[in-house]
Amino acid sequence: MSTRISQPDNVAMKGGYWLATKGTMDVIAAAAPLVMDALDCMDTEAADSPFCLTDMGCADGGSSMHLVRKVVQTVRRGSPDREISVVYTDQPRNNYNALFRLLHSVDESSVQSYFEEFQRLYVLASGTSFYEQLVPNRSLDFGFSCTAMHWLHSKPSDISEHVHAVGATGDELLTFKRQAAVDWETILLHRAAELKDGGRLVLVNFCRDAEGRHLGNTTGVNMFDTFNQLWCSMLSEGEITQAEYVSMTLPQYYNTLEEFGAPFEDSGSAVSRAGLTLEHAQTKVVECPFRAEFAQHGDAAQFARDYVPTLRSWSESTFHGALSASRSEEDRRRLVDDFYGAYRALVEDNPAQHRMDYVHAYLTIAKSSS
Amino acid sequence: MSTRISQPDNVAMKGGYWLATKGTMDVIAAAAPLVMDALDCMDTEAADSPFCLTDMGCADGGSSMHLVRKVVQTVRRGSPDREISVVYTDQPRNNYNALFRLLHSVDESSVQSYFEEFQRLYVLASGTSFYEQLVPNRSLDFGFSCTAMHWLHSKPSDISEHVHAVGATGDELLTFKRQAAVDWETILLHRAAELKDGGRLVLVNFCRDAEGRHLGNTTGVNMFDTFNQLWCSMLSEGEITQAEYVSMTLPQYYNTLEEFGAPFEDSGSAVSRAGLTLEHAQTKVVECPFRAEFAQHGDAAQFARDYVPTLRSWSESTFHGALSASRSEEDRRRLVDDFYGAYRALVEDNPAQHRMDYVHAYLTIAKSSS
Repeated sequence: MSTRISQPDNVAMKGGYWLATKGTMDVIAAAAPLVMDALDCMDTEAADSPFCLTDMGCADGGSSMHLVRKVVQTVRRGSPDREISVVYTDQPRNNYNALFRLLHSVDESSVQSYFEEFQRLYVLASGTSFYEQLVPNRSLDFGFSCTAMHWLHSKPSDISEHVHAVGATGDELLTFKRQAAVDWETILLHRAAELKDGGRLVLVNFCRDAEGRHLGNTTGVNMFDTFNQLWCSMLSEGEITQAEYVSMTLPQYYNTLEEFGAPFEDSGSAVSRAGLTLEHAQTKVVECPFRAEFAQHGDAAQFARDYVPTLRSWSESTFHGALSASRSEEDRRRLVDDFYGAYRALVEDNPAQHRMDYVHAYLTIAKSSS
Repeated sequence: MSTRISQPDNVAMKGGYWLATKGTMDVIAAAAPLVMDALDCMDTEAADSPFCLTDMGCADGGSSMHLVRKVVQTVRRGSPDREISVVYTDQPRNNYNALFRLLHSVDESSVQSYFEEFQRLYVLASGTSFYEQLVPNRSLDFGFSCTAMHWLHSKPSDISEHVHAVGATGDELLTFKRQAAVDWETILLHRAAELKDGGRLVLVNFCRDAEGRHLGNTTGVNMFDTFNQLWCSMLSEGEITQAEYVSMTLPQYYNTLEEFGAPFEDSGSAVSRAGLTLEHAQTKVVECPFRAEFAQHGDAAQFARDYVPTLRSWSESTFHGALSASRSEEDRRRLVDDFYGAYRALVEDNPAQHRMDYVHAYLTIAKSSS
């Protein structure tokens, strides 16, 4: 459920690991003022129950480590003895071993855990999806999520002429838009049940901004169009079948601010009746760290080598899954390797056109008595 | 912190995996009546807060899966709508990936998760040691642990002529006994802080019973004496140094029922003042599943092949750690392989003498207003 980056699985990923982490860290750093503002609005000195924080879509916890430290420090400033629970959540296949090793400082790491810095702090993990309730009713003070909620609960349909909803049209686009609205409401209603009165959410989600920009589509070519063109080439060259081409549809949708805000507009909506209000909404673009690094070193081959693996890290399983199960595993792997190899060649040939700037909506949501 | 068995790390372990799991499952099955009795004594219908259960030293959660299911069923029988949290805890190096994959049924498994069977059930994991507080003050209803608390917080000293406290004498024995008493008190005081009034613990810990029996020492040879003799042979053959021989000391202690009961005897003790009372204490022997399997198949080589890897699974890191850091990793691995190879040869030569029966204390502890 997370596009945040965890421990590298292989050496190829390692070159880009810190840059990809830097990207997420930059996005989370951009959210920090909103988080501090949200805490300011809360009565964190109410010490009748532990302060509970969730990080939904946590990956290995590295990119939010410093933000969580700041939240704990802030709560403790007002209420030095208050117990605090931090609940990290992600999907069941997440690398929880990496999370606990990082939190408990088992290995050397450039990310310093806050765990030993505080007393009366309980750190837990959950493998339950944010499409379900994660913690008991009215037990949550502050919920955070970054770069996770663009993953739909399930793929509503294939997109016949593209790989992503940003390239969908007509009824297919409508199907995705509707699914995304239902999913967004589901996410919010579960959070409404979890939140105490006066609690807050800060959700940092991929979006389409007022200028139509989105992840990988700011200046230069549209990353998802590149995905689609390369996948299309493999179809026209007979490498993959039409069914495989169509089946490659990322189960994602990037809401606009209007779409994120819709459930809050109507005071009779389920979300409003559950006590949620939208306190703050804005979009921000965070520069692609690979691109910034390339501006320093100017080596197109190195840029391509660092950049493409991070795209691969969150898209590979969907490409792999689109290939027919009747193929050998070796064949499927070769085709996926070919695909990203072709992407790398494109980047190396024309590096100026490629970048994956992050475009996020930063949302603060409050829970009042319902 | 757990001697319970998680996913096998290698093929060699696989043969013994299910048998080792069966052993722990048998021990937990023997604890089930105590757990049900403890729940009977509790007011589980008090629905003002979620019912919280911990499983301390959970490994991958497989061996306690059915017990946790029964606890949830029992709580829900009295209070169908009550929210329930299950918190799995182990040390930071535990295989949490295996835990979450098993709980959320990601892979095929012979162990069926209860997770999908219930609503309003929150399953979490913690990588914090049971020598620390695991959950907030007065939030715990029922704490369970099986085969974990014989691991001392740290090794109090080396044992000069044996590898385990069961073979220690004089001052060395006294040092271990004292450390174990301090550690047991630490464990109990943290649990006392976590427990709600009326809450219960069922702790199933390795022990020495009234007949002096303990893990691997019921009939036949004493497993720990065998460990020691083989390690001694490697010393006399010049394979390891005197310092390495001495450094191999398992940081474990097996309390007697009297030692487990001591903090509860004195009404002025810290444990008594914290509100804990010992409601039930007994010892039980559970037969070595490898030995039972051998009685069926009669193949000494297979017995040795299945049996020794399970001993290795919980002792290898200590043997490895006793070897000088100045040796190459290859050399250390070879020596450890030689050690278990020699153990296997002993078992194959004289299988009738070898078995690792489990000898546990089964303790029920209650928390009253302190």
